[in-house]
Amino acid sequence: MNPEPFFQLDRVIHEKGRLAIMSLLAASPLLSFTEMREALGMTDGNLSVHIRTLQEAGYVAVTKTFLLRKPHTTYNLTPAGQEAFKRYIDLLEQIVAQNKKVS
Amino acid sequence: MNPEPFFQLDRVIHEKGRLAIMSLLAASPLLSFTEMREALGMTDGNLSVHIRTLQEAGYVAVTKTFLLRKPHTTYNLTPAGQEAFKRYIDLLEQIVAQNKKVS
Repeated sequence: MNPEPFFQLDRVIHEKGRLAIMSLLAASPLLSFTEMREALGMTDGNLSVHIRTLQEAGYVAVTKTFLLRKPHTTYNLTPAGQEAFKRYIDLLEQIVAQNKKVS
Repeated sequence: MNPEPFFQLDRVIHEKGRLAIMSLLAASPLLSFTEMREALGMTDGNLSVHIRTLQEAGYVAVTKTFLLRKPHTTYNLTPAGQEAFKRYIDLLEQIVAQNKKVS
């Protein structure tokens, strides 16, 4: 067994909630907080904390605009976030492939 | 995006070090502590703590025997551990498949 892929897994993305958020934003860019919360079934507090961690890592960017004169905030993956997420999914794929060979 | 697979990921297995240990034992049953430590490049302390967590979850069993009159301890996945690990890898596969479709 090659232990490398396990230890290369990005800690920021590996947490289950953040993995779900990254996957959601990879599939649907520019979601609002409410859209994300509903898609993921997470609490406000949980979602906020994870988004903040992803922002601090430089993986998620926030855009504040106005929609029908009301403030509207959307979230998207940054180029660094897209790159890190692609790398993470590639590592998961290697881990699955190693373990499918075995079983 | 279907958020189910993310939230179903087993917390005990999802931690990177424990995921590596489970994969190693799935591939090579009945390893000694030293063999595991060398295969994974983990410290004694780290490996001990993770093995204890996996034992407490009922996923890893310890067998104490004698080898050339010296005590010899080996580790292996229990049937529950094999089952949980298979389920975990199946979920990872779904997550990879969802995300490969997207990119």
